[in-house]
Amino acid sequence: MRNNKKMHLAQFLMHSPTYHSLAMWRHPRTAYSSLSWDRPELYQHIAQVCERGKFDMVFFADVSFISDTYTGSLEPAIRYATQAPAHDPIPLLSWLGAVTSTIGLGGTFSISHQQPFYVARLWATLDHLTRGRAAWNIVTSINHNESANYGAELMEHNLRYERAEEFMEVCIKLWNSWDKDAVVMDRERGVFADPAKVRRIEHEGRFFKSRGPLTVTRSPQNGPAIIQAGASSSGRAFAAKYAEAIFAVQPFADGAREYYADVKGRMENAGRNPDHCKILFGVQPIVGRTAEEAREKQAFHNSLVPVEAGLTILSGHLDYDFSRRDLDQVMEHSPEFAIQGLAKTYSKVANKQLTVRDVAQMHGQSVSLPQIVGNPEQVVDQLEAYYQAAGGDGFMLSPIYTPGAIEEFVDMVVPVLQRRGLFRSDYAGKTQREHLLQDS
Amino acid sequence: MRNNKKMHLAQFLMHSPTYHSLAMWRHPRTAYSSLSWDRPELYQHIAQVCERGKFDMVFFADVSFISDTYTGSLEPAIRYATQAPAHDPIPLLSWLGAVTSTIGLGGTFSISHQQPFYVARLWATLDHLTRGRAAWNIVTSINHNESANYGAELMEHNLRYERAEEFMEVCIKLWNSWDKDAVVMDRERGVFADPAKVRRIEHEGRFFKSRGPLTVTRSPQNGPAIIQAGASSSGRAFAAKYAEAIFAVQPFADGAREYYADVKGRMENAGRNPDHCKILFGVQPIVGRTAEEAREKQAFHNSLVPVEAGLTILSGHLDYDFSRRDLDQVMEHSPEFAIQGLAKTYSKVANKQLTVRDVAQMHGQSVSLPQIVGNPEQVVDQLEAYYQAAGGDGFMLSPIYTPGAIEEFVDMVVPVLQRRGLFRSDYAGKTQREHLLQDS
Repeated sequence: MRNNKKMHLAQFLMHSPTYHSLAMWRHPRTAYSSLSWDRPELYQHIAQVCERGKFDMVFFADVSFISDTYTGSLEPAIRYATQAPAHDPIPLLSWLGAVTSTIGLGGTFSISHQQPFYVARLWATLDHLTRGRAAWNIVTSINHNESANYGAELMEHNLRYERAEEFMEVCIKLWNSWDKDAVVMDRERGVFADPAKVRRIEHEGRFFKSRGPLTVTRSPQNGPAIIQAGASSSGRAFAAKYAEAIFAVQPFADGAREYYADVKGRMENAGRNPDHCKILFGVQPIVGRTAEEAREKQAFHNSLVPVEAGLTILSGHLDYDFSRRDLDQVMEHSPEFAIQGLAKTYSKVANKQLTVRDVAQMHGQSVSLPQIVGNPEQVVDQLEAYYQAAGGDGFMLSPIYTPGAIEEFVDMVVPVLQRRGLFRSDYAGKTQREHLLQDS
Repeated sequence: MRNNKKMHLAQFLMHSPTYHSLAMWRHPRTAYSSLSWDRPELYQHIAQVCERGKFDMVFFADVSFISDTYTGSLEPAIRYATQAPAHDPIPLLSWLGAVTSTIGLGGTFSISHQQPFYVARLWATLDHLTRGRAAWNIVTSINHNESANYGAELMEHNLRYERAEEFMEVCIKLWNSWDKDAVVMDRERGVFADPAKVRRIEHEGRFFKSRGPLTVTRSPQNGPAIIQAGASSSGRAFAAKYAEAIFAVQPFADGAREYYADVKGRMENAGRNPDHCKILFGVQPIVGRTAEEAREKQAFHNSLVPVEAGLTILSGHLDYDFSRRDLDQVMEHSPEFAIQGLAKTYSKVANKQLTVRDVAQMHGQSVSLPQIVGNPEQVVDQLEAYYQAAGGDGFMLSPIYTPGAIEEFVDMVVPVLQRRGLFRSDYAGKTQREHLLQDS
């Protein structure tokens, strides 16, 4: 059945010199720009371009550690800037709130070393500041390097999700602790707010205690929109319950279709309308004016990724040190890998058995996002094919250089998407949630 | 000895409908403004006015609880908006970074329920975003209502300061984990940063463990400028070691002189130049075009504070429930008060024995900041007299309505201060620290 709903587009970013492409910082388009990765003016420019392109949101991923998995040393991660350094993305959201008017502003915030009261207060405030454009990607820490920065042990997977569930529950109680009409500001009678419409939450659970009320009045979206990215069974269950958008990575339509059906089914079982959570699949667009130019851009970009940089980020993601492996051996699955099925996925991409070197190279180019290469019409063809085959709700775009690649997508690809009726021509609403619910 | 250094001025704010004046939200000038306390556009306007006035900084205080000390109920605090609601002020700092260019941006952030890695990362990021204009007022929680929001017990006073000391130490180690010249961005050789110039901290102390390095490169000020507000002996010791600015409340010149001499002496003992921490005394200016207009403004403002509102905030500050007291009895000191000496201070202000009602009324008007009332010349006379008598380095100004009162100070009082050579005519530097060190 053909999906006639308009797709949703989000721009993937990090407050870092590299995202999915490890070539990004040294690509000449990035390297010779005056807008550096550590300046908010870069993200201001990008957010304004994406707002012009009517994107649902700019979305910041985050990591708060530098990985030492490859060779047991920090050296390669620092040398190759494998998603490091990574500055805190959350303060960027309010900066962007000041310089944009409509686009959603999403950010990743780990709850692993936090208390719900602080986090609920921070995000309710961000939702106020942005007039309802805030979106929180709730994550828990899964890397030993991150836990070590906080002097803590990694929590066991299921326990992490139980804690996350209770964390979310406390946040929701706090966001509900002020009724929508609690603030009356009756100047004459001297009544700022109606005390009957503000209440304690008196939460006492397994992991948290909190009295409340929150010190923040009801925000436009009553807390931020919720984003999730968990691929595991507990992650999908959490997403089905709370998420309004999911960032998913599935290089192939069949995997995407399975994932999509599973999450939407879980939503129905949880009594939610499946349209109320948008699943956005990650892609790395490489756009040229001609097909040949695009292929040249791809080849040049990919040539800028040293295999050792790819090995560094691959080792970090799988939490397995590939310096122990022969690069020219076939990449075989190991039960020690933190993520399962990656080698198989890559083999399928290449349609052949890959060596460790091949996989590292591909991982350094785009992690495992599919590269969508072509002239604007060809890029739209591929996005449409994926969209129809996979049943997704849209895409999370990751650039190969900044500034530059995002502008090209907005200026060259978005008009084609709009002309073909695949993407909105304007915003219908004002809040993040309204953008995510706008299917026409 | 006459102090010929120029004074420093900072603007006290909260992300709240009231600060020191509980009349603020219902004062007609505030109440009928389109710039509401919960809109960043208000603070944007204020910060731009203060930048025009060449202030050292705008400074946000913070509380993350609603007090129930008075009557044991939340009701009066919500009804009278006694520093509640209070939205998170930290996201405002980056918003203001986007819309100002020079003024320092200070904010209060409690460490009581936090880990140093998160806090060091947040503030180093803010310092980057603002190009070195960030200032952190480090505080610890002292209110049972706040602890209850975090499901924790209040920590004993000295232990709190020991923890704060170690917290600061870990932050400083993390800020030093990237050398200034670590990032080389050698595009040709593919070297983003020199791994020899980034290091782990491997901190293991009584309260915290952290491996590091920070994920944030060296920021312009190498972390934010440090503000402190502690009046106790451990607070003063902490300030003498770390603070670059202190917000102090001393209604009288003799108390201010004692405080000033004590902190500066402690700094010398700690091997610091006493000029490297600026002590700013809180005042509440009430400016009129004429003396009579100013007195009328004061009387009108003070008449807008219900005595019950004053009792609510007084009860919160002393953590003592004044609903148990007869309002017409003389205010006598009690060992149960969380802050000592307040009754005596107020008696001195009024030059007579005060009743509980009198003290509550005064507390609701300005907490215990002196009201500085007069035409511009008279306000400057009083500020100069305090400045010369107390030995302070400048003032923290708290308004009686917003917007309005800050503009009046900047437009009417600042030119007089400048003409008399008491205040700078322009910024000499660009960072928060440079403003605080600029004495001419």
